[in-house]
Amino acid sequence: MTVLSSEDPVRVFQQFATVDLLSHGRAEIMAGRGSFIESFPLFGYDLDDYDELFAEKLDLLLQLREKPRVTWSGRHRAALADQPVFPRPVQDPLPVWVAVGGNPQSVVRAGALGLPLALAIIGGEPARFAPLAQLHRRAAEQYGHAPLPVSINSHGFVADTSQAAADSFFTTYAEVMTQLGRERGWAPMTRNQFDALAALHGAVVVGSPEQVAEKILFQHEIFGHQRFLMQSSLGAAPHREVLRSIELLGTEVAPIVRAEVVERTGAAT
Amino acid sequence: MTVLSSEDPVRVFQQFATVDLLSHGRAEIMAGRGSFIESFPLFGYDLDDYDELFAEKLDLLLQLREKPRVTWSGRHRAALADQPVFPRPVQDPLPVWVAVGGNPQSVVRAGALGLPLALAIIGGEPARFAPLAQLHRRAAEQYGHAPLPVSINSHGFVADTSQAAADSFFTTYAEVMTQLGRERGWAPMTRNQFDALAALHGAVVVGSPEQVAEKILFQHEIFGHQRFLMQSSLGAAPHREVLRSIELLGTEVAPIVRAEVVERTGAAT
Repeated sequence: MTVLSSEDPVRVFQQFATVDLLSHGRAEIMAGRGSFIESFPLFGYDLDDYDELFAEKLDLLLQLREKPRVTWSGRHRAALADQPVFPRPVQDPLPVWVAVGGNPQSVVRAGALGLPLALAIIGGEPARFAPLAQLHRRAAEQYGHAPLPVSINSHGFVADTSQAAADSFFTTYAEVMTQLGRERGWAPMTRNQFDALAALHGAVVVGSPEQVAEKILFQHEIFGHQRFLMQSSLGAAPHREVLRSIELLGTEVAPIVRAEVVERTGAAT
Repeated sequence: MTVLSSEDPVRVFQQFATVDLLSHGRAEIMAGRGSFIESFPLFGYDLDDYDELFAEKLDLLLQLREKPRVTWSGRHRAALADQPVFPRPVQDPLPVWVAVGGNPQSVVRAGALGLPLALAIIGGEPARFAPLAQLHRRAAEQYGHAPLPVSINSHGFVADTSQAAADSFFTTYAEVMTQLGRERGWAPMTRNQFDALAALHGAVVVGSPEQVAEKILFQHEIFGHQRFLMQSSLGAAPHREVLRSIELLGTEVAPIVRAEVVERTGAAT
């Protein structure tokens, strides 16, 4: 996720346009306000402007993807007077998702602007996030937009067996969470907590291909989402196991999920 | 080269520290004021502050590499109040070169600060740049620094034969130079001009391994420099030929140059 609030939208656009060119049109921006706030004092921003910063910078980012020359002014970034911004991406428009941790205001903004929603679910019970997806849908309708995609973004890991997945992922996941927690006053991550998160109703999507498919489909009943995005490489996860997780997600999990979603909705995904 | 004047030194440091970690300590920053000035209005900077911007941002960059927590204030970037800046690079300190196109003031600054000099020679006769290398050496002495490295950075290309090198490089080189020139009022790059640049006294280092070694050694008589940096991929140069150029530079050119420099100076390089 790009913490757009403390970034410069021009640089963000240039960087993602570059990645889009290198990847022949596969780059996407997930822009958010930031669940961690260390970047605000580092780049001279005031937390009192937390929401205004994001709204203003999102506005500029959306203008940059509309056309190569932009005239713009705001409170938190130097004005642009018909400035050309290059390179231009392959995709027109370059996809911009609004990334949200649980804030209703951000969800409404995404729907109102006609932007897809990337819902980060990395703790607690995913079912509790259902009202946010509904709020997004309703805001989009009210502002006259066609239905917008929703993505569920979670930590997760796939291995050949349930046991291997949990054992492999727990080590680095707990290390990272405990380290982050030390600076933020959380208790260290225990295996019990992890097992609760890894259960069907928990936020972490870890297991054998069948288990992971089951969990994604369980969440699909709640959200009816169009995309599930798994972040597998937390900390120093062994690269070979991360590659294997990606392979299993693509070759074994995805076909099960796609077939079942077609069955449920009658629609191709 | 990083146009530090219109960059944020904190982001630059974070990005290069990340590359340094990924590459196990092989990242280097070449910081310059910018020979092209398009980035100034784009990021809200005034060309009237051209030199002050660079001096101030270089000062911050050097503080960031000294220690993880920095307190700093200046005119052109938000102040830092004992802010921790992460990640930290492998190298301590992370190398910072001052990249110069021909400006004596920048050369003196590099020497005075005890920083190595990256001299970009991409046009004209390299011999005319000799006084700059001397100026750097003298400034370093005056400020009590040990002798500092100098790098000559030029466009160039190595192929198995002289003809193949020139033909291959000319196409994309002329395309890029002509395209840049259109926005800047230069005449289109012709093959005659290119051949003059590619001759022994010209700025472009193109040819067979023997020719390229000869040219680097010719320049070494002028500059006594410690590094030669060749930029081979201008525009859409065929990737395979660029890889071959890099291979020839490492396996054929470098051994000739190293052996001859040892002979000349009696020193390992």
